[in-house]
Amino acid sequence: MQYKELDINSIIPYLKGVDEVMDYFDSDDLKANEIGDGNLNYVYLVSSISDSNKALIVKQAVPYLRCVGEEFALSRERMTYEIRALTKFKQIAPDLVPKLYHVSEDMSILVMQYLDKHIILRDGLTDAKRYPNLSEHISTYLAQTLFKTSSLYLDSTSKRKLIDEFNSNTELCKLTEDFVFTFAYMQNETNDADNIKDNPLAKELFSDMEFKEKVLDLKYKFMTSSDALIHGDLHTGSIMLNEEETYVIDPEFAFVGPFGFDIGALIANLVNNYVHHTIVTKDEDFKDYLLGTIKETLELFESKFLKLWEAQKDSALLIEGYIDDETAQNYREKFLKRILKEAVGFAGCKMARRVFGVAGVAEIRGIEDKQLRADAEKLVLKIAREFVMKYEKIDCIEQILEIIKVNSAR
Amino acid sequence: MQYKELDINSIIPYLKGVDEVMDYFDSDDLKANEIGDGNLNYVYLVSSISDSNKALIVKQAVPYLRCVGEEFALSRERMTYEIRALTKFKQIAPDLVPKLYHVSEDMSILVMQYLDKHIILRDGLTDAKRYPNLSEHISTYLAQTLFKTSSLYLDSTSKRKLIDEFNSNTELCKLTEDFVFTFAYMQNETNDADNIKDNPLAKELFSDMEFKEKVLDLKYKFMTSSDALIHGDLHTGSIMLNEEETYVIDPEFAFVGPFGFDIGALIANLVNNYVHHTIVTKDEDFKDYLLGTIKETLELFESKFLKLWEAQKDSALLIEGYIDDETAQNYREKFLKRILKEAVGFAGCKMARRVFGVAGVAEIRGIEDKQLRADAEKLVLKIAREFVMKYEKIDCIEQILEIIKVNSAR
Repeated sequence: MQYKELDINSIIPYLKGVDEVMDYFDSDDLKANEIGDGNLNYVYLVSSISDSNKALIVKQAVPYLRCVGEEFALSRERMTYEIRALTKFKQIAPDLVPKLYHVSEDMSILVMQYLDKHIILRDGLTDAKRYPNLSEHISTYLAQTLFKTSSLYLDSTSKRKLIDEFNSNTELCKLTEDFVFTFAYMQNETNDADNIKDNPLAKELFSDMEFKEKVLDLKYKFMTSSDALIHGDLHTGSIMLNEEETYVIDPEFAFVGPFGFDIGALIANLVNNYVHHTIVTKDEDFKDYLLGTIKETLELFESKFLKLWEAQKDSALLIEGYIDDETAQNYREKFLKRILKEAVGFAGCKMARRVFGVAGVAEIRGIEDKQLRADAEKLVLKIAREFVMKYEKIDCIEQILEIIKVNSAR
Repeated sequence: MQYKELDINSIIPYLKGVDEVMDYFDSDDLKANEIGDGNLNYVYLVSSISDSNKALIVKQAVPYLRCVGEEFALSRERMTYEIRALTKFKQIAPDLVPKLYHVSEDMSILVMQYLDKHIILRDGLTDAKRYPNLSEHISTYLAQTLFKTSSLYLDSTSKRKLIDEFNSNTELCKLTEDFVFTFAYMQNETNDADNIKDNPLAKELFSDMEFKEKVLDLKYKFMTSSDALIHGDLHTGSIMLNEEETYVIDPEFAFVGPFGFDIGALIANLVNNYVHHTIVTKDEDFKDYLLGTIKETLELFESKFLKLWEAQKDSALLIEGYIDDETAQNYREKFLKRILKEAVGFAGCKMARRVFGVAGVAEIRGIEDKQLRADAEKLVLKIAREFVMKYEKIDCIEQILEIIKVNSAR
């Protein structure tokens, strides 16, 4: 089918032609509403007129950035990678990825489960809501998706095929290279100019050569490590949940990249939220909950990843009979430590870029009181800098928590 | 054009249909001889009947391993990667890659310059022949090809396109994964069984878990680092030369892999030759020449690579204005040290695999006296082991030379 940009009127006739969607709606009459919060794509809520409990989400990419308009070209092929990644992650972690009813790479469209009883994790955490299953669920998601798309599980041929499927997600990888690893630490027109002007903190960051040299190392790792299929943008806005269920959405940045990147993104966003509560709500109990969530998530990730690996006899990397069990166990544990280190480094970049870079997060940039916002930014950069400067020396989860706590205590 | 396996009779009519080839031969009548030394492919020398100075080499891949026969299937697409790599390397290092007259990915065929005044570097070195331009030429080849296919030179989009072109060279990458990094260090049917039987050296190697764990790290780097387009099999049999000219041939193992792999392969093969002269000819002058060649090649590589990088304003990794000049210089120098370390690690694997693995090298496996061969193998493994165990601690070229010299002195 040839690509056609759909709108609120043409979307219903399009869906009527898709059997899986009509099976779901049982041939009810449908209505569509545009939901406005997508930066990149058009998102519609399509529901049955007679039974409003029956509803699905439709996402279509257009060949430009939706939130800016047609003058900011961004090829619609980003939806190809979102489709491929959702399909792959759904196979690997079925309970943690929304159900897909229809996908078309030609039409850059997907139709998926409507998560009406779930909210964005970022919003929940900012409101000091606790999610008892979050660390259990998200550690499973990370361990399963990272392990099962890596050379520790796949054979060589399958791994290269996987790289092929995502290698041309060039535009979105470039966005990360630019916005996470480069522009946010120098004078650049995409930055938050109002906040940078006459701000000593920006001046300090932009001239912090030690920090920027380390960021360069991490950028290089991001660009050249083909460890596993990563989500690529796993911040707390890409997780929808309630007390029982957790779903990971929006993997359009997916490609075969470094193990530590998704884990780092998650840590970064939990720490940004911790900073928010340190400066704004001063809710010490909730701060403890956040630290506990980071700790548990990392511990569970490590034990689940290790367990999957221990059960795996042959892979591209290792075959039976090559080394003895004790050496293999030792190797696996060292390998996990490297992932942890790298995750901390990436977490530092993912935090720091939120301060002056193009895309802020609500917890920090949304703080209305100017002084409090400045305090929060200062604390974010302090923790981020320690993450980036010390990541190679991190050997255990406790050290990460220490960096967060010590810098926030005063 | 549909693939057809050519033979000594059908090759001339095929070439008559290729303008570039007929232009070269000036429409002379042609004769073809099969040259038997290709392991993988059929290789023909095609020459003018009236003027034997006019000659070209024709290489065609068949869908099996030529030296074994049709029962060892190996897809002929390996020639696709040889064609792409030769074309790319010829653009980048025109004086150091043979001229191509015709290529066809469909026919898995290439026609190239006949290097009749050149010999294989391995043979020359074993005969203690010196090549005054070798280090100058091969350091240029390495610096140019590695730098100009990396994220330090290319932009993000071009780099991903390059990865795409070579990513599916799966079969040959797998050969390296298996034969360089795995099978040669364990009981495996592909090994040199006669030599392994009752050999304490094999027993020691196969149970050396410390060594094998480090090899696993290097294998993982090989499989997951997308630094630059590498030759992938740069031993001294892939270099043809005389006193004036040097050509790099046979890049069918090419893919976007780690920076240090080609450099390591070259070091490994020069050291294997050094071991040969230590044990067999005891030619101390020539051994000094070999050490000098390693030293010069690495020094020149570093300075040429650095110079290319210093002249490069923008790349996928670094853009102007991100860091100051001093930090950039510091970063580049540290980066080069990492390449050196990694090269030493890969050199260790490339040496060690030659002892009991499927493909030996003439300098070692070809030693007829059993005791001398065993002595040479012992020395190869001693140096290889130090390379693998110490590579992460190597900081300068002198340390590499020390490892070679100290272990060979007795």
